[in-house]
Amino acid sequence: MLILLKKGATDDQVAAVEERVRQAGLTPGLVPGKARTAITVTGNWGEAMIPDVRSMPGVMRAIRVSKPYRLATAEAADARTEIAIGEALVGSDNAWFVAGPCSVDEESRLLETAHYLKSLGAQALRGGAYKPRSNPYAFQGHGEPALQMLARAREATGLPIVTEAMDLEQLAMVEEYADVVQIGARNMQNYSLLKRVGRSSKPVILKRGLSASVDELLNAAEYILKEGNCHVILCERGVRTFASHSRFTLDVAAIPVLKALTHLPVIVDPSHPAGVRNLVRPLARAGIAAGADGLLVEVHPEPEHALSDADQALRYADVASLAAEARGISQVLNRSFGADAD
Amino acid sequence: MLILLKKGATDDQVAAVEERVRQAGLTPGLVPGKARTAITVTGNWGEAMIPDVRSMPGVMRAIRVSKPYRLATAEAADARTEIAIGEALVGSDNAWFVAGPCSVDEESRLLETAHYLKSLGAQALRGGAYKPRSNPYAFQGHGEPALQMLARAREATGLPIVTEAMDLEQLAMVEEYADVVQIGARNMQNYSLLKRVGRSSKPVILKRGLSASVDELLNAAEYILKEGNCHVILCERGVRTFASHSRFTLDVAAIPVLKALTHLPVIVDPSHPAGVRNLVRPLARAGIAAGADGLLVEVHPEPEHALSDADQALRYADVASLAAEARGISQVLNRSFGADAD
Amino acid sequence: MLILLKKGATDDQVAAVEERVRQAGLTPGLVPGKARTAITVTGNWGEAMIPDVRSMPGVMRAIRVSKPYRLATAEAADARTEIAIGEALVGSDNAWFVAGPCSVDEESRLLETAHYLKSLGAQALRGGAYKPRSNPYAFQGHGEPALQMLARAREATGLPIVTEAMDLEQLAMVEEYADVVQIGARNMQNYSLLKRVGRSSKPVILKRGLSASVDELLNAAEYILKEGNCHVILCERGVRTFASHSRFTLDVAAIPVLKALTHLPVIVDPSHPAGVRNLVRPLARAGIAAGADGLLVEVHPEPEHALSDADQALRYADVASLAAEARGISQVLNRSFGADAD
Amino acid sequence: MLILLKKGATDDQVAAVEERVRQAGLTPGLVPGKARTAITVTGNWGEAMIPDVRSMPGVMRAIRVSKPYRLATAEAADARTEIAIGEALVGSDNAWFVAGPCSVDEESRLLETAHYLKSLGAQALRGGAYKPRSNPYAFQGHGEPALQMLARAREATGLPIVTEAMDLEQLAMVEEYADVVQIGARNMQNYSLLKRVGRSSKPVILKRGLSASVDELLNAAEYILKEGNCHVILCERGVRTFASHSRFTLDVAAIPVLKALTHLPVIVDPSHPAGVRNLVRPLARAGIAAGADGLLVEVHPEPEHALSDADQALRYADVASLAAEARGISQVLNRSFGADAD
Repeated sequence: MLILLKKGATDDQVAAVEERVRQAGLTPGLVPGKARTAITVTGNWGEAMIPDVRSMPGVMRAIRVSKPYRLATAEAADARTEIAIGEALVGSDNAWFVAGPCSVDEESRLLETAHYLKSLGAQALRGGAYKPRSNPYAFQGHGEPALQMLARAREATGLPIVTEAMDLEQLAMVEEYADVVQIGARNMQNYSLLKRVGRSSKPVILKRGLSASVDELLNAAEYILKEGNCHVILCERGVRTFASHSRFTLDVAAIPVLKALTHLPVIVDPSHPAGVRNLVRPLARAGIAAGADGLLVEVHPEPEHALSDADQALRYADVASLAAEARGISQVLNRSFGADAD
Repeated sequence: MLILLKKGATDDQVAAVEERVRQAGLTPGLVPGKARTAITVTGNWGEAMIPDVRSMPGVMRAIRVSKPYRLATAEAADARTEIAIGEALVGSDNAWFVAGPCSVDEESRLLETAHYLKSLGAQALRGGAYKPRSNPYAFQGHGEPALQMLARAREATGLPIVTEAMDLEQLAMVEEYADVVQIGARNMQNYSLLKRVGRSSKPVILKRGLSASVDELLNAAEYILKEGNCHVILCERGVRTFASHSRFTLDVAAIPVLKALTHLPVIVDPSHPAGVRNLVRPLARAGIAAGADGLLVEVHPEPEHALSDADQALRYADVASLAAEARGISQVLNRSFGADAD
Repeated sequence: MLILLKKGATDDQVAAVEERVRQAGLTPGLVPGKARTAITVTGNWGEAMIPDVRSMPGVMRAIRVSKPYRLATAEAADARTEIAIGEALVGSDNAWFVAGPCSVDEESRLLETAHYLKSLGAQALRGGAYKPRSNPYAFQGHGEPALQMLARAREATGLPIVTEAMDLEQLAMVEEYADVVQIGARNMQNYSLLKRVGRSSKPVILKRGLSASVDELLNAAEYILKEGNCHVILCERGVRTFASHSRFTLDVAAIPVLKALTHLPVIVDPSHPAGVRNLVRPLARAGIAAGADGLLVEVHPEPEHALSDADQALRYADVASLAAEARGISQVLNRSFGADAD
Repeated sequence: MLILLKKGATDDQVAAVEERVRQAGLTPGLVPGKARTAITVTGNWGEAMIPDVRSMPGVMRAIRVSKPYRLATAEAADARTEIAIGEALVGSDNAWFVAGPCSVDEESRLLETAHYLKSLGAQALRGGAYKPRSNPYAFQGHGEPALQMLARAREATGLPIVTEAMDLEQLAMVEEYADVVQIGARNMQNYSLLKRVGRSSKPVILKRGLSASVDELLNAAEYILKEGNCHVILCERGVRTFASHSRFTLDVAAIPVLKALTHLPVIVDPSHPAGVRNLVRPLARAGIAAGADGLLVEVHPEPEHALSDADQALRYADVASLAAEARGISQVLNRSFGADAD
């Protein structure tokens, strides 16, 4: 059950609705979204009560939702969510183009890459400052200095910055520098982190876990939405299956399925499922063709010098071709891709 | 080890090469392909012997192949295999467009569908006469009468016919009527059937098994090639994973991986992995975008009356949109899709 | 819907019941089982009709079954099916112990192995005469000579023979020599083969396909039962998952699940999922502990000389330990394992 | 590369070894284990250097390890790790028996359950105070009051307490009350949590992630060991596969594989993969039969009143049977199971 309040609903009106819910023996949950205020209702709600609540002052809609993720469900919104990041509007007819190195390493290289990607129409720069690594002895990212390099690259190019945070401490740091916080696949069910990022003012990219169902992904998004951060971008990045010819199996069907189940934008990371460079472009094209709202691609000018994910980073020439192809496919689907290229 | 013979190699020359192989304690296997004759060599072959064989009369190439599927491997061919089916050339820059009902039911409906599909640019008509069904009590296809209806639809429209055979008896019947024999996913490792179809004069669509690796698919193709039928078209149609939001998980990465490993054409069936109508178009677009050499799509004018796979059959309007989208995406990749539409 | 007829039901009584079904607009399917005759009914059957049929002469039971596999379902039987093979009763409180080489190679070795296994309490000898091989150039079994060696081993030891058939031609040959026909995982949905073995007088071991659900396995069994062969033994042999530390993932939960869904015996093959020798014993123990009705184990006196599956064949010492452990675990579960050991 | 120091190695000796490693251009990592001190070495280490280090004062062993998890690898230890928890020695010939409710709810019920389990031979009491829930609106555990109830149950019965912590804050709280900290499957790659629990004085149960490979599980354990907590117990609890007849697929092969790869104890949770009550016992038996060092079982006196996992909680009668069976199977494998039962 979900109650959506009018934009100008007063505190008294909100309190009255909450009180009404409590009287019915149910638990109201106030979601202090910027765009509009919602009250989630937990417990079994008598159908008969809905018309009642609908007529209360300040109430816009009161609906019965069939999914546990009552804020993320498509039923909860009149339109697809569009999230402004820099000059881009993620979730709109313009597919979002984010690219950059897996790990931030050398500053001049990062700057050069950022300028080059911007010239291809990239709308945000991704780069890892904190890296989740299976192997505890592997390179774990340069931390704050990497964030500072990213911030300088933004200053130089105007590109907003996307970077991952893996715990509360990192998140506090990442929020200071980044425009978008990424929650990685391994942390998709790290509920403490989800709740904390739900109280952040920054948009969030939430990556699907390696073996998460679409319902589990949407429930994870709900953990964030429930705390008031309604700027969540879902990201399909491959799932683990028996197939070993690619690192993970890109689940393209998840894209249209998610877009039917939720109003949130859905983007694709083709680099991690590929695992090797020559599969990134086909997977990226497939993602856009399946209706994804954007691409998150790993690029490195000299992959042989990359500190992580060297095998799957696209070279400059590859990413230029990819951008052109994604643009062409988007046009077939009556969309645009990225910003205008130089 | 693979020895390719020149087109005009004489029987004596072939026999001499076979004899040479036997002298080395190895087993020669003559592959009587139409295009050219090949001799596969089983056993450990001394590197030193290759130059020897290369200089024998009638020998075009003698190469060491690293894969068990020595005829299917990309190394075994100078160019991608192109297979003429009606006016189409499967495996060429023109992506093949095959469509039709899951099961053949009513003749006038089949004819109408065939005419309609042709007007959209379809290059072959698919339709099931023999249906593999998990449930032994479910409808198993109309058999020969269905084949006769398909033949009449071909006569009326000029469209070649694609249909499945599940055993030797059905295969004999299918060969009489069809232009292309389909081997279904459940039979991908039915070696007796593969060997028999390897002696057929008809091109074969070989569907990937539900949990087959790409190597296993290529080994299955090798069973066919080894018997002399070099007209094998591979078909990705989804694999079984934990994901339950689509019937199977379309493994788009398998398309570029297969195209790198083999010279054979690789097409996609988006209908079976979808399982529901509204996922077919996104999956079809993803397949073409990933580089597939064609699409095999289930279409029914009134899916509610279909005898099988009613939920996933595209309606007329859907397939028209799909054809337009596939055409557009193909152009982005410097290819064409299907024949010219009306 | 399933109608079970009394043992002494006359032809006229059977015909009358069939007629009654036809009158109701439904399709009767006569299942000529040895033990008792059943009539399967396809179509929607009015509940009201059941009491009617029940009172007809010759009818023992008329029941509504909720599963498509109406003969295999547990509801269709009063007791678990027990199948006499040699002196063993498969499906009883005695867990069946079958062992032998993957491929039959050298006769004296086979005989020695058979004698040794018998001394450990083995109740049947397995051995491959026809081998399904992914690689078309790999050893495919010795064929009829291997069957003859198996028959001589039976003569020498009294052990019944279990061997695989992959097509109709092989099946005709296998039936001449073997006591039990094995249908391999790759052929679990080879419906022509299933139907044909359904008309065989020999008991059948039906192996679960690599990615088959339990319902699909039971539907495959139904294809056999429907033709009148009610002696079907199901075999769990591992499924394909992302886990690569064993060749396949033994799905132990499938054992109790199958035993709840069907009255047919369920055995385990621990050798194929293991893929390496040192995993076979733990998997075999787990299978018996989970309630399996028997074990099918690959054994070779000198695995380094085995023509196939050398890595997973147990040595003599291993199989002796395994038999002792399986016997001990069976006792904990109030069962016995194999015949008495020497 | 791993250097193990003698028990009485002085600070100076340790410092000298570290210095020697640095001189070689490599990075030493001091692991302050209680039992013994280890230095992990990151970087490429010349083989030639090993004899050198071996002869330094205070050094017990210097070995080359082939796995990234150099402390968890079996090569790093002379014997299997045994962890004292209450009167039990986890990893010894006595298989550990832990049981209790999924969530702690009512205190008198918890006490009664604890007494009953103790009478069956249970060696520790499990119970959830903080529950990871996919659905953000579902019951999330009673928190500290639940921990206090658990502590009182320990006081009353003498059973050590096992409970889960999902973030740093919870961990601080859990450490105050519990004897063993559980890290759940969703947090297996929550590296911040792993590092923090690596600095805890409490033993840790680390559950395998839903789609984690055994190498990933061992790398996760390494994150803990590396910080100095050498009391890590691995737990197999099922993986996600296509099979839907059980909630997850218990990967029994992982047990012997892990026991060959690491010196750490490996236990099994049969309740979560089962998902339904009647599969728990067969899976538990299979786990013990495959060689697991213990069982972690959900039990509830009245499952219909359980606040979570009601479907899979064993009733009293079931757990009594399970304990008897596990005891019997353990004896077959020359082990004991749990403490003596009343």
